[in-house]
Amino acid sequence: MEEAQKKVRDYIRKNEDRAACYLQRLVQEDSTRGQESSAQAVIIEKCRELGLIMDIWEIGGETLKNHPAFCSDRKVFIGNPNAVGTLKGRGGGRSLILNGHIDVVPVGEVSAWDQDPFSGHIENGRLFGRGSTDMKGGTVSLLLALEAIVNSGITLKGNVIFQSVIEEESGGAGTLAAVLRGYTADGAIIPEPTNMKFFPKQQGSMWFRITVKGKQAHGGTRYEGVSAIEKAELILKGLRELEAKRNSRITDPLFAAIPIPIPINVGKISSGSWPSSVPDSAIIEGRMGVAPDETMENAKEEMAEALREIAASDPWLRNHQPETEWFGASWLPGNLEIDHELVGVLGKAFEKIKGCSPVIEASPWATDGGILNKIGGVPVVVFGPGVTKMAHDANEYINLKDVYEAAEVIALAILEWCGTA
Amino acid sequence: MEEAQKKVRDYIRKNEDRAACYLQRLVQEDSTRGQESSAQAVIIEKCRELGLIMDIWEIGGETLKNHPAFCSDRKVFIGNPNAVGTLKGRGGGRSLILNGHIDVVPVGEVSAWDQDPFSGHIENGRLFGRGSTDMKGGTVSLLLALEAIVNSGITLKGNVIFQSVIEEESGGAGTLAAVLRGYTADGAIIPEPTNMKFFPKQQGSMWFRITVKGKQAHGGTRYEGVSAIEKAELILKGLRELEAKRNSRITDPLFAAIPIPIPINVGKISSGSWPSSVPDSAIIEGRMGVAPDETMENAKEEMAEALREIAASDPWLRNHQPETEWFGASWLPGNLEIDHELVGVLGKAFEKIKGCSPVIEASPWATDGGILNKIGGVPVVVFGPGVTKMAHDANEYINLKDVYEAAEVIALAILEWCGTA
Repeated sequence: MEEAQKKVRDYIRKNEDRAACYLQRLVQEDSTRGQESSAQAVIIEKCRELGLIMDIWEIGGETLKNHPAFCSDRKVFIGNPNAVGTLKGRGGGRSLILNGHIDVVPVGEVSAWDQDPFSGHIENGRLFGRGSTDMKGGTVSLLLALEAIVNSGITLKGNVIFQSVIEEESGGAGTLAAVLRGYTADGAIIPEPTNMKFFPKQQGSMWFRITVKGKQAHGGTRYEGVSAIEKAELILKGLRELEAKRNSRITDPLFAAIPIPIPINVGKISSGSWPSSVPDSAIIEGRMGVAPDETMENAKEEMAEALREIAASDPWLRNHQPETEWFGASWLPGNLEIDHELVGVLGKAFEKIKGCSPVIEASPWATDGGILNKIGGVPVVVFGPGVTKMAHDANEYINLKDVYEAAEVIALAILEWCGTA
Repeated sequence: MEEAQKKVRDYIRKNEDRAACYLQRLVQEDSTRGQESSAQAVIIEKCRELGLIMDIWEIGGETLKNHPAFCSDRKVFIGNPNAVGTLKGRGGGRSLILNGHIDVVPVGEVSAWDQDPFSGHIENGRLFGRGSTDMKGGTVSLLLALEAIVNSGITLKGNVIFQSVIEEESGGAGTLAAVLRGYTADGAIIPEPTNMKFFPKQQGSMWFRITVKGKQAHGGTRYEGVSAIEKAELILKGLRELEAKRNSRITDPLFAAIPIPIPINVGKISSGSWPSSVPDSAIIEGRMGVAPDETMENAKEEMAEALREIAASDPWLRNHQPETEWFGASWLPGNLEIDHELVGVLGKAFEKIKGCSPVIEASPWATDGGILNKIGGVPVVVFGPGVTKMAHDANEYINLKDVYEAAEVIALAILEWCGTA
């Protein structure tokens, strides 16, 4: 084992520059939603080089679309496949999924970028570009780790299943399709941008829309109407109380450093169309955080109960119940106890490479880990080299040193988790 | 005088059905802002029938647009004129303006109407349609009163100036143009929908827009941002406190029956564009009521002071002051003491027709009476047959009986005020 570890670490160190060039090439392929294919081709080329058994397919079909966790408004998946490459083990070891998403979020305002958003420009050890941090850098860590193992001539006992999926940024249909295709394992690592932290638990989330009714009237006799804005204020206050109540229950030390572990964020309100009319409708839209150990259904029910209580406290709302829709995106939370062996194996590898203990937290956002965990039943740790705060931002970048170190950590974890022949 | 009174009353009673048909025709001409011409044509036709000296002109020009009370975002007035018809008196009597606006507010959601919004449908003594109550019914009362006087062969001493103006619903530029064209008089009656009440005082109003800043962040870490919606809630609360303070000062018995004499109505709020982002801006729009005895400037200053106090109470707002704009429409309040002779003359006519005293109140909304009164220096009573609560509403209607009775009251008041030869 010591020898295998040395081999892969030496391999990675010798091939850092090649890995940086590969990441640059990957970032230069714009893989915004709906045009993931050219970046996937770069991934698939590398997988073939490594001799992985490839499974490349366009997601879709009734089983996927009818699944309760399916969440996508995308009509066409043709031409932009999922890619899964399996490194078959000799047998007798634990299997491991290495999951990365190839889709990137839109670049936003181009003028906010100092370089072309898909430049892949390298400067002072940073590689810039949309997707560099979220999460092509993490994917390169995975591939570099695998390459090190394969090219060092090491044979694993357990299977390694490398997945490059689409649709993570839009609800996780790519990973859900992989799970439904039968890909599960004894563990999974997702190298999302965690600043090299471990996130064995991830906050889930879903979007809500609450519609509050009022009664129209002329503003000069506003007492003859009922302001939907004033009623919406009761809902806003109630949502803050619900948030406080839900968060007061969370005692998991992983959340200790997080001011609001599972926020209820009101992102949007819209009411009225005329300054001198009493508005008869208000629409509140937001995102409800979901705790790792709760189900989406329980969270929805708790929201419904809170709204019933708010409505019960107000004569108007009692007779004009606010209506709730769950719309748009939803992401399942992920939940792995920190004493799970996967955390231990990954932690040991981390300590070996970094000379210190990993920071273990709960993430304030969900990843495809929720689907792997809650639908696939796979223990998942989210751990990766990206810079959390730069994800989705202009001038997104990644520190290349972290890409290499994450590759070393992941390579060692693979050796330990899957076992060597 | 007794004989003249009898003649006009008889005339009105005999011509009720014709008046109803005329009102129906007037309502059927959609005179929403920007398309007032076809309804004006129906008015002008009637005025010519009565032999009034017509003055028909397209408003506009620098004098109007530069006037401090001018308030309109309308670019084009071409093709939709003001119409003024004068019934010249023999001399030696008091003059009287009879003012009605031809513009109607938009119909709103058509599906909320039981009939076509411009049907003019008559059922059980009610005539339905946008503008029936606000205020084509009142205008028909004016014309019926004038017709009764003219067709009964009565000669008045003072001039009667009938005005059919545009733009009342959007800030009163039509009546302001008439004042600036030189039309003033010893008194004025405006038959807005008052439910046959007298409004010698009218609430003024103006529109405000308050912009509140926040700080953007991801909803999953919302504590890293500052919600503009939460800050807007502080403003909403503060505006209600300001409203309470301003209304507590009003002791005029004319306001005794009005729950909120000068309301501050928030008609619109808009904030955020994405459910899972913390919104960084919120816009509140509303209407501030202005008391008959205060100036617009004083009311604005009181709002500014209240916002400064709200901002001072919150650390974020202290450094990110909300911004206020006064935009769109504004209506001057009207203020006539109830012992003015115009109130007396109209009241005597009312008692004669209705057999009881009029209800005298302050109106909860402004009319063009504010401009006639504050800019033209004309004593104004607002009194008309429309159903106050149906103004601007779906299924707007007017009780035809009130149209006829208002015509009788106004006819008698004209005889008394202007004097008969």
